[in-house]
Amino acid sequence: MAKFLEKYNKARDVKNSVLCIGLDPSPGGLDGEGVLDFCLDMVECTSDYAVAYKPNSQFVLFTLNLEQLKKLNEKIHQTGCISILDHKLGDIGSSNEAAFYWIAEAGFDALTLSPFTGDIVGSVDSAHRHGLGLFILTLMSNPEAVWIQKETLFRDKPLYQKIAVEVNSTGADGLVIGTTDHVTEQDIRTVRELSGEETIFLCPGIGAQGGDLEKILKNAGGNILVNVGRAIISDEKPEKKAKEFRDMIEAVR
Amino acid sequence: MAKFLEKYNKARDVKNSVLCIGLDPSPGGLDGEGVLDFCLDMVECTSDYAVAYKPNSQFVLFTLNLEQLKKLNEKIHQTGCISILDHKLGDIGSSNEAAFYWIAEAGFDALTLSPFTGDIVGSVDSAHRHGLGLFILTLMSNPEAVWIQKETLFRDKPLYQKIAVEVNSTGADGLVIGTTDHVTEQDIRTVRELSGEETIFLCPGIGAQGGDLEKILKNAGGNILVNVGRAIISDEKPEKKAKEFRDMIEAVR
Repeated sequence: MAKFLEKYNKARDVKNSVLCIGLDPSPGGLDGEGVLDFCLDMVECTSDYAVAYKPNSQFVLFTLNLEQLKKLNEKIHQTGCISILDHKLGDIGSSNEAAFYWIAEAGFDALTLSPFTGDIVGSVDSAHRHGLGLFILTLMSNPEAVWIQKETLFRDKPLYQKIAVEVNSTGADGLVIGTTDHVTEQDIRTVRELSGEETIFLCPGIGAQGGDLEKILKNAGGNILVNVGRAIISDEKPEKKAKEFRDMIEAVR
Repeated sequence: MAKFLEKYNKARDVKNSVLCIGLDPSPGGLDGEGVLDFCLDMVECTSDYAVAYKPNSQFVLFTLNLEQLKKLNEKIHQTGCISILDHKLGDIGSSNEAAFYWIAEAGFDALTLSPFTGDIVGSVDSAHRHGLGLFILTLMSNPEAVWIQKETLFRDKPLYQKIAVEVNSTGADGLVIGTTDHVTEQDIRTVRELSGEETIFLCPGIGAQGGDLEKILKNAGGNILVNVGRAIISDEKPEKKAKEFRDMIEAVR
């Protein structure tokens, strides 16, 4: 079994949750120490209900230095959770190598990758050499994605389906699939079928973006991470919100 | 005239060069101060021959903090050059907003964007609101890009052509087009035609990747930046190499 899948399975069993919390601290006002404290506090008060945390590079990389990223990941691991950098890496060759090097150094377990450069196979190989799991953006939650991901065709098949096939054949650990209106039940089932049983579905869009929890949980299969960001971390009572989302998910799962 | 195009025109006139130097300091061994010193030295010794510098996020964001990024950009601007963050941003909504906020704070003039999320129009609007120019990845230099950028079709046209049309209609400042074998003379001419006369072509692939300088210079039109990275910054005599590349480009241009 792939190393990241083992980590995921173990964490899910221990924490009895598939809730992933997006750590997207608003820019401005806080320096590196302030952002780190915000993230550490958020992990502290929500970790009973989560199985994973997903800091987003656009929110944290300009403020947190390598030592601060390490501290955040140590904290996440102490709670039994896994840590995924939502990096949407979209570079090539030596630039990707540099990213994998630093992301592994910082102590993340996995990252997200954009397939636009076409090199999914090389990226999976490199990520695995660095001990990192890799989630490939496949069908995203924002409605503007429809023209490029669903209406653009590779050999008469929508691009997202070709990507799901690549996820399977390259041994990528997971993929990103949205939960919002333009992602249908049939889309979710097709992606599961093409990407294989073990692929972990990382599903954003629940909460602020208005995604449909039931749709994703009833069609995506068991290996899943449901991401909620702002609806938890921007709430006055993040602990209570995290519990609510965990309970809502478990009631359907 | 768009603000970034003005900056580009002015810098090109003053520096009499279209050479852009990729700042990709190898990971490991150096801390933030070391990476900053490396980059400052590189700018110091090559700036007579360059019009732009392009630090790559995968090489610099894990080491340089915001203050260090500001110092690097101040140095670049002191030499009369422009500074482009090769970020390949590929996120949505508030995450993109956070990226534009920080990239503007750090003092960059522009950044690169991956179109995989589909939201080119929203991204251009946001970048411009933050005073940043935007280069859209269109036809990349790595051979693995062929299946997704050339063989994937939007309404019977290759994806890269649809992106070139979007660059034009959204008012993006520039696009990224490779110079390696799979990018033909006809591809370059088609992208110029579709994206409009003013669009700035940022062209990687020269040097370590073996791209063809004459092919790009004879077909891309006047608004161009020719990027050279490793072949200059990894050389024992970067100043001499930068002059060589500048002279090679000017001999054809």
